[in-house]
Amino acid sequence: MITNPPVTVLGLGLMGQALAGTFLRAGHPTTVWNRTASKAEHLVAQGATLAGSPAEAVAASPLVVVCVSDYAAVHELLDPLVLDGKVVVNLTSGTTQTARETAAWAAQRGVTYLDGAIMAIPQAIGTADAVVLYSGPRSAFDSYEPVLKSLAAATTYLGDDHGLSSLYDVALLGLMWSVLNGFLQGAALVGAAGVDASVFEPFARNLIGTVGDWLPPYAKQIDDGTYPAYDSTIDTHLGAMDHLIDESESLGVNPDLPRLIKAVADRAVAAGHGGHGYAAMIEQFRKSPGE
Amino acid sequence: MITNPPVTVLGLGLMGQALAGTFLRAGHPTTVWNRTASKAEHLVAQGATLAGSPAEAVAASPLVVVCVSDYAAVHELLDPLVLDGKVVVNLTSGTTQTARETAAWAAQRGVTYLDGAIMAIPQAIGTADAVVLYSGPRSAFDSYEPVLKSLAAATTYLGDDHGLSSLYDVALLGLMWSVLNGFLQGAALVGAAGVDASVFEPFARNLIGTVGDWLPPYAKQIDDGTYPAYDSTIDTHLGAMDHLIDESESLGVNPDLPRLIKAVADRAVAAGHGGHGYAAMIEQFRKSPGE
Ligand SMILES: NC(=O)c1ccc[n+]([C@@H]2O[C@H](COP(=O)([O-])OP(=O)(O)OC[C@H]3O[C@@H](n4cnc5c(N)ncnc54)[C@H](OP(=O)(O)O)[C@@H]3O)[C@@H](O)[C@H]2O)c1
Ligand SMILES: NC(=O)c1ccc[n+]([C@@H]2O[C@H](COP(=O)([O-])OP(=O)(O)OC[C@H]3O[C@@H](n4cnc5c(N)ncnc54)[C@H](OP(=O)(O)O)[C@@H]3O)[C@@H](O)[C@H]2O)c1
Repeated sequence: MITNPPVTVLGLGLMGQALAGTFLRAGHPTTVWNRTASKAEHLVAQGATLAGSPAEAVAASPLVVVCVSDYAAVHELLDPLVLDGKVVVNLTSGTTQTARETAAWAAQRGVTYLDGAIMAIPQAIGTADAVVLYSGPRSAFDSYEPVLKSLAAATTYLGDDHGLSSLYDVALLGLMWSVLNGFLQGAALVGAAGVDASVFEPFARNLIGTVGDWLPPYAKQIDDGTYPAYDSTIDTHLGAMDHLIDESESLGVNPDLPRLIKAVADRAVAAGHGGHGYAAMIEQFRKSPGE
Repeated sequence: MITNPPVTVLGLGLMGQALAGTFLRAGHPTTVWNRTASKAEHLVAQGATLAGSPAEAVAASPLVVVCVSDYAAVHELLDPLVLDGKVVVNLTSGTTQTARETAAWAAQRGVTYLDGAIMAIPQAIGTADAVVLYSGPRSAFDSYEPVLKSLAAATTYLGDDHGLSSLYDVALLGLMWSVLNGFLQGAALVGAAGVDASVFEPFARNLIGTVGDWLPPYAKQIDDGTYPAYDSTIDTHLGAMDHLIDESESLGVNPDLPRLIKAVADRAVAAGHGGHGYAAMIEQFRKSPGE
């Protein structure tokens, strides 16, 4: 493979612009296309080639990276194109199902397909902090890994099931929103008492790091299926969950998230896990509430 | 103050044992009492003095640290005692209201009262990782800070309003449960596809660290009341939230948390924040859903 193979980027939203800009800075001849052409201006000024059509864009490079809003947009964009022989790397967020459907679609057309998931904000693309997950044929990943690595230090291959990157993606996004919502709930609570979010933030950040350190032993408990309460019981957590609800209600802050937190713990206690550690809650997440 | 003033610890549950053990190791003559006396055995073997009654326990030291299940237990334990002239540090979890009520109770009895909140698991007590927050009279905190510091490197005074430690406590606990639940939701999702929690965990931990880095700019946006979408819009998040719900439903994983996540974002979009960044969601957390 030549040192800096050409790359085509389709979709220049917040993320697509970051992807194309990073390929450019890494020295790849970069052809771009976006439905709204004006979003390419900044990239063209940096040396990108703006294609007049998606067809012209994909003709320019063996590697086509797609990052648009959703898979419906992916297909609206790609279905009319001649793509056989191309390697398409789709970094649009989706589900395991849309990823596998797109893999089947690609197979019918002689397209080599990698599905990917970006676990980073646009500003982190190209940095040591960025994580991008890939699934699909190992050989295609191996061939293009040097190119893809310019997007993220942690360019990670998950396996040949095309659904894996979306699976990890939704699982990690759920965690991301949970962290953000937990922070916002806390900021709303202290804010109602006149404490600035910026004052609360260092405490929150510190706590997040602390909780992160608990995950390896909790993960082991989950895999082992035993949940000894070496730190705190669910019963003890449950008592404090009531405080979170009370405090939210009395400060006029939205109590929905606190109530959901407690509802899951209530079910865990009802299932006999009151004396177990928090990891026992996994059983409540595994099944529908009615079960 | 003498180098190692004596300390009394009331309550020897998972946390109380850690507190008393840490005072002992720091060289403080430590008197302990627990309703179930057998929980003191291990501590007595390490040199603690087991008091025959709460009254005997509090008579032994000017500083009395209490850590029992809840404030009802605190009052059941302390109300019958003669405590005037003592400094009581209550590390039991509660709300701003129970903290302030207990401060009023203490004032009536000539007790110097500090309310505290432990942001750590028992295993972390006495380490660099432990955070304990205090509120109440500054002078009492300053006098006993050297003693309290043996429990946690981050021994932090929040202010003279006794409710502050509980306020931060519930706000941070809500974040803690949110992180844990987000991890469990993700572990349940990947687990349904046969991926072990221990395989998912390093990705989760990495993501948590990444999201922690976003908090300072988000906190600033919250304090400024402006939410430019420099990374991703709520509209973009909302699309991916549908994937989390779909994936949870199709894998038979509990969709309650994903649905709550989306419901809040839906309200933010309905309020006109679709083009803003995630921090704009604070407005939904600040108010009751009906508002
Ligand atoms: N931003 C992030 O932090 C982030 C992080 C991880 C993953 N992602 C994922 O990356 C993808 C893009 O996100 P983004 O932040 O770049 O979103 P965005 O700023 O809203 O950009 C959306 C892009 O999709 C294009 N598009 C939408 N519908 C189209 C259609 N029918 N045909 C052709 N192009 C179409 C848009 O073109 P126009 O410019 O013409 O509208 C634009 O280029 C999403 O799947 C998102 O979930 C984003
Ligand atoms: N464990 C943690 O990770 C953690 C972290 C931060 C904060 N906390 C807080 O610390 C406090 C204690 O938690 P823990 O984990 O130690 O709980 P625990 O293991 O369940 O211990 C509860 C303690 O409270 C005592 N108690 C309960 N009711 C009582 C009563 N009416 N009179 C006298 N004593 C009574 C118990 O005595 P018996 O032994 O006789 O039952 C026991 O010593 C809680 O408020 C908790 O929220 C815990």
